[in-house]
Amino acid sequence: MTAPAQIVLRRYPDGAPTPSDFEATGLDVPEPGDGEVLVEVTHLSMDPFPRLRMQPRPPVGPPLPLGEAVDGRGLGRVVASRFAGLAVGDMIAGDVGWRTHAVLPGDRAKRLDPGLGPPERHLSALGPSGMTAYFAMHVVGAPEAGSTVVIAPAAGSVGSLAGQIAGLAGARVVGIGARSQAAALTGALGFDAAVDHRDLAAGLAAACPDGVDLFLDGVGGPAHDAVVARMNPRGRVVLLGFIAGYNDGGPPAYGTAAPILFKRLRVEGFLLADWQARFDEALRQMSAWLGSGELRPVEHVWMGLEQAPAAFAALFGDAPPGKQIVRVQA
Amino acid sequence: MTAPAQIVLRRYPDGAPTPSDFEATGLDVPEPGDGEVLVEVTHLSMDPFPRLRMQPRPPVGPPLPLGEAVDGRGLGRVVASRFAGLAVGDMIAGDVGWRTHAVLPGDRAKRLDPGLGPPERHLSALGPSGMTAYFAMHVVGAPEAGSTVVIAPAAGSVGSLAGQIAGLAGARVVGIGARSQAAALTGALGFDAAVDHRDLAAGLAAACPDGVDLFLDGVGGPAHDAVVARMNPRGRVVLLGFIAGYNDGGPPAYGTAAPILFKRLRVEGFLLADWQARFDEALRQMSAWLGSGELRPVEHVWMGLEQAPAAFAALFGDAPPGKQIVRVQA
Repeated sequence: MTAPAQIVLRRYPDGAPTPSDFEATGLDVPEPGDGEVLVEVTHLSMDPFPRLRMQPRPPVGPPLPLGEAVDGRGLGRVVASRFAGLAVGDMIAGDVGWRTHAVLPGDRAKRLDPGLGPPERHLSALGPSGMTAYFAMHVVGAPEAGSTVVIAPAAGSVGSLAGQIAGLAGARVVGIGARSQAAALTGALGFDAAVDHRDLAAGLAAACPDGVDLFLDGVGGPAHDAVVARMNPRGRVVLLGFIAGYNDGGPPAYGTAAPILFKRLRVEGFLLADWQARFDEALRQMSAWLGSGELRPVEHVWMGLEQAPAAFAALFGDAPPGKQIVRVQA
Repeated sequence: MTAPAQIVLRRYPDGAPTPSDFEATGLDVPEPGDGEVLVEVTHLSMDPFPRLRMQPRPPVGPPLPLGEAVDGRGLGRVVASRFAGLAVGDMIAGDVGWRTHAVLPGDRAKRLDPGLGPPERHLSALGPSGMTAYFAMHVVGAPEAGSTVVIAPAAGSVGSLAGQIAGLAGARVVGIGARSQAAALTGALGFDAAVDHRDLAAGLAAACPDGVDLFLDGVGGPAHDAVVARMNPRGRVVLLGFIAGYNDGGPPAYGTAAPILFKRLRVEGFLLADWQARFDEALRQMSAWLGSGELRPVEHVWMGLEQAPAAFAALFGDAPPGKQIVRVQA
């Protein structure tokens, strides 16, 4: 068993987060109360959105408290249970936080179906990233064959799956990312073109000769403006986030919206929580695509809890493609 | 017959247009060529959108040329016809321009059905303003009974009809306008509340205690931000224009779009041209509402071509409620 430990937030990051904003400390393993379970954390999911709460006055939700284990979703193995629905040895998903051991209310711990795939898959294609990719691209975006789809960031946990789903629909798929990610995008991930996020205007012009019909936007900022400038009339934008602004301290502009009018765009905000009632449908389809090999899981695993700060910081830099996962223990 | 005359654009307005930006000059009445008709212009429609083209580099469309009659839609009576589909005496609608006489290609002149109502009605409830109100509110917006609808500008040609249509659907209808328009809004036009555009935050808070479900936005600028700040989750915004920015020289911001994400808004651009195939449906419904008295036409008529510049300038000020129409000749 790994020595009990946790990663706490030392201070609110100034701009992009760095590992020195965090600190590893010891952990007193708590006892589960009535209706609770104790889990050994096995994997952590790295997600950029919590960066918004790493400030004294977040634009959404309460601030993450300093000196406490960082909030975060992950997987764990039940090692003690006072909840009837879970037994020792069960693998669960839940808000475990950045630590080796966590106590969770049993009804907030979702038992994993091991038949669906290895644990990592439950944090990528079969987890929130996969559900987001499925609903935002397959259901809301629903690109037509031959249409042009742009995804930003393309190499992220959602983009790397959404791009493949758009490809399955027969769309031309263009991904925006770091130059270092271009080979992976047009290689294993099957994007038709990769555009360097530092050369957007020229890159988009070359990669989207017929304009853009659908834009999955998790970036905001200048990339939003650059893609919207190339949208075709009646094109659609699905807003998933604005990682370009997460380090700025407040809600950023997505840019001027006059093109929404002139081009009769439909711009929709998307939050996964609204789609919970349809998760079974998504899991069935994603599993089928994974099983047939049409969909390739894209995961990068960092070894050890102490890697969590670096993995988190990499979300805002040149992370390897796909879902960033911290392996806490075997 | 009125002496032939026209109103030309003397110079591009600096900010809000003023009558001195225009000039009345004489007009040589042209002869209709093959397939053309000569009309005596009877009414002009005053619309704010052309203000965007009164600058050297418009954000959309070509600049309006200086020294020529101002472009604009209106009504006229055919006085000479070399087009088989139109006879002398027919009333038509078309892009006649700000002048007493105009030659039009016959296939660009739409013969009016006099049975549908008096000529003014074809520029208000049965014209582009009415079609916009019908499709933007009745079809795209489609408010539910008991929901809260905000309209800006409420007293304009579209808003004054759209508010009534929302009321027919059982919505609570709140209009944004000048203080001088409040009595008309909550009186004859049947709005549930009027909000002064110079006191938006307090006014909206008082008028929309349950938040805003649907926003018909023809204003943009600070009003857009203020209403969006009060939108309920999954609320919808239909963008019709941004008159707040027409005098600024370029496309303005509608404000930051982060709330689109957090509140899962759907923001759609609307241009009437996309709905042409369904005009008959709209005309039938609008005529039925007018006939039953459920819908009240809202028109303000300015007498004489020489009033066109003042009528146009009033669009950006405190115009009387409803459609502004210039009566050129009887």
